[in-house]
Amino acid sequence: MKVLGLVGSGRKDGNTNTLVEKMLEGGRSKGLETKKVFLADLHIEPIGDCVACRRAGKCSKQDEFDSLMDEVLDSDCVIFGTPVYWYGPSAQMKAFIDRWVCRMHFDEEGFRAKMKGKKCVLAVPHQDEKLSGAKYLLGMMEQTFEFMDMALVGKIQTTAWRRREVSQDEVAQRHAFELGARLAEVEAIKEASGSVTFNFSKRLIER
Amino acid sequence: MKVLGLVGSGRKDGNTNTLVEKMLEGGRSKGLETKKVFLADLHIEPIGDCVACRRAGKCSKQDEFDSLMDEVLDSDCVIFGTPVYWYGPSAQMKAFIDRWVCRMHFDEEGFRAKMKGKKCVLAVPHQDEKLSGAKYLLGMMEQTFEFMDMALVGKIQTTAWRRREVSQDEVAQRHAFELGARLAEVEAIKEASGSVTFNFSKRLIER
Amino acid sequence: MKVLGLVGSGRKDGNTNTLVEKMLEGGRSKGLETKKVFLADLHIEPIGDCVACRRAGKCSKQDEFDSLMDEVLDSDCVIFGTPVYWYGPSAQMKAFIDRWVCRMHFDEEGFRAKMKGKKCVLAVPHQDEKLSGAKYLLGMMEQTFEFMDMALVGKIQTTAWRRREVSQDEVAQRHAFELGARLAEVEAIKEASGSVTFNFSKRLIER
Amino acid sequence: MKVLGLVGSGRKDGNTNTLVEKMLEGGRSKGLETKKVFLADLHIEPIGDCVACRRAGKCSKQDEFDSLMDEVLDSDCVIFGTPVYWYGPSAQMKAFIDRWVCRMHFDEEGFRAKMKGKKCVLAVPHQDEKLSGAKYLLGMMEQTFEFMDMALVGKIQTTAWRRREVSQDEVAQRHAFELGARLAEVEAIKEASGSVTFNFSKRLIER
Repeated sequence: MKVLGLVGSGRKDGNTNTLVEKMLEGGRSKGLETKKVFLADLHIEPIGDCVACRRAGKCSKQDEFDSLMDEVLDSDCVIFGTPVYWYGPSAQMKAFIDRWVCRMHFDEEGFRAKMKGKKCVLAVPHQDEKLSGAKYLLGMMEQTFEFMDMALVGKIQTTAWRRREVSQDEVAQRHAFELGARLAEVEAIKEASGSVTFNFSKRLIER
Repeated sequence: MKVLGLVGSGRKDGNTNTLVEKMLEGGRSKGLETKKVFLADLHIEPIGDCVACRRAGKCSKQDEFDSLMDEVLDSDCVIFGTPVYWYGPSAQMKAFIDRWVCRMHFDEEGFRAKMKGKKCVLAVPHQDEKLSGAKYLLGMMEQTFEFMDMALVGKIQTTAWRRREVSQDEVAQRHAFELGARLAEVEAIKEASGSVTFNFSKRLIER
Repeated sequence: MKVLGLVGSGRKDGNTNTLVEKMLEGGRSKGLETKKVFLADLHIEPIGDCVACRRAGKCSKQDEFDSLMDEVLDSDCVIFGTPVYWYGPSAQMKAFIDRWVCRMHFDEEGFRAKMKGKKCVLAVPHQDEKLSGAKYLLGMMEQTFEFMDMALVGKIQTTAWRRREVSQDEVAQRHAFELGARLAEVEAIKEASGSVTFNFSKRLIER
Repeated sequence: MKVLGLVGSGRKDGNTNTLVEKMLEGGRSKGLETKKVFLADLHIEPIGDCVACRRAGKCSKQDEFDSLMDEVLDSDCVIFGTPVYWYGPSAQMKAFIDRWVCRMHFDEEGFRAKMKGKKCVLAVPHQDEKLSGAKYLLGMMEQTFEFMDMALVGKIQTTAWRRREVSQDEVAQRHAFELGARLAEVEAIKEASGSVTFNFSKRLIER
């Protein structure tokens, strides 16, 4: 199984990267093949007016969307890592997702068939003290996955006020690792019929 | 540690009961003391106009709210089990929570001090096919716990279209059991700084 | 056109009543027939286990649900007035809505046909300083109306920290009146294709 | 009073533009000064890692963020027009908002002082049939405005499945016009203490 981790933060060595990296480590501990991509390294344009593209019969944007999209399609599981910026995902992550429409315009059925059932995971660090600060981001992403019939395997969110805070938060890292390891154990989740959530705390004392 | 499981469904042998019961079993497997209460067995009136009560210096309702509230206060952890009825908790569960105000009116500081840090868990079966069908219920309950500074340890939700469906869903039962067992391992979670969620499926094949 | 205003607060002379009353006044100013019902005056039991009822062929509860439900069915437009209690509607309002299932159990098609397209309005005062404090209540109620194919014509929400605060808030009262008057002008809204919202403020200076 | 209308769609002659344009027309009918900006005409980079900038003492991005931000600061009211793309705002709009942090990094107090109380309006067309399809976008934007203490005056949302559908929807256009006109009448809304919403329908028959 191939796991692709997307780091959607503008910062390459920050909290989002730590969460995604630990999750990929967890996957590798179970023998999964992993790859990490920093959206900050790619040039992906926002979606434009699709009329010209439709006339031309192909997307007119000259950027790295297609290669990233192909990597997503080629992966069994995709980790969407994004910080909470203004209660939503980063503009980089949003630009990538907005462009999915380019594929749908030219071959909706084919694109849907490839995305359907694809496993995905959310990794979301945020500066808000309260976990509820991520609710609109989570809602937006979950409904996107639901719309594409993707198989959301799980999600992790952590508060992290300071730069690199997660790199000192062993509890968060352990949970990210375990979520990554779990990817190997879940053969097929299809449509989720349930979910279980464990809240944790930096100040948590676990026996 | 004492765990109190509240079954907020009008049905005593239904899906909510199964989730709460499995969670209590998980707790007992770790040596926790457990108790289950069916809200359907109790007479709890909705909140009225509190002016008369304030004048009288005590709540005027003659019902079983006080004894249940005292049991909650006396427990280390409370499982709030409620089905999703019309996108919210059952009226029975809502009536109990609405009445918390009766305690706050007479001794807000004292009541808050007792609720603060109290561990709680959510157990939510629902008929909606999609997990997103519980989002308003979860938001409402989570914000209630946040307002009282309670320590939400975790939550489980399952779709269950048919009567007693959860009693045939071994995956859901196992996750409920594990969430219950986890209660013993978490000494103190205080304010959660993170959460990890595992989605599961009846049709899930786990290696 | 017949407008029924439901006051779901435990307090009969409070903020919910003021909003509902002003809206009914607005309706009467356009010649509409109006009626107001206080849920606090009625005995409506929470929903129980429906198995016994199904066997008996009719709902076993002996209370005032049926007469209220019939009044709702007999009205062209229903105002659902409820305070925000713990981020949701009052238990009284929730108990009434939960019981709609009793009708659906025995004649889902017939009940749906009668509710479909029925105009409804939300009137929601709340103690939260921020309008966002009502979001779960609004979401829950709006999805309920959507599920029943009812025609939500509009909604009004106001912050009101103190008892009877809305009775001194002329801006809120004026907006409630106008929303009520609008009921007469809207022949049929069916499925809403748009909505426009005006925020207002007690401290608002309107030229 | 100066009103700035932001069109956040990739399409310059589409539904978002129609809503924003009609709103600006409404403003002009009351003598307001208006300006419209297409985000698609501007080059605004997503936020990067701010460490280099902090060291340099100024934002390192060479693009048109600063000139647009200055125009926003110079306006009394800003219309945020964005289609619903994947349950959130367009990446263009998100990129602009994400960059507000650049100003906050160097002068949080000064930036907050300038944004506080600034009037704003939301204009949101979307392809979802149901108005609830915009809820995460609205929640995200509203909480952003709340965080900055901006004064949300109102919002309009319309379903619009087809390209340019709003340009044939007179009901939606009229409501947009009226919302724009209202901008002139609202001297100061500060913190909203209430909101009133009118739902409408293309198929609406208003007497």
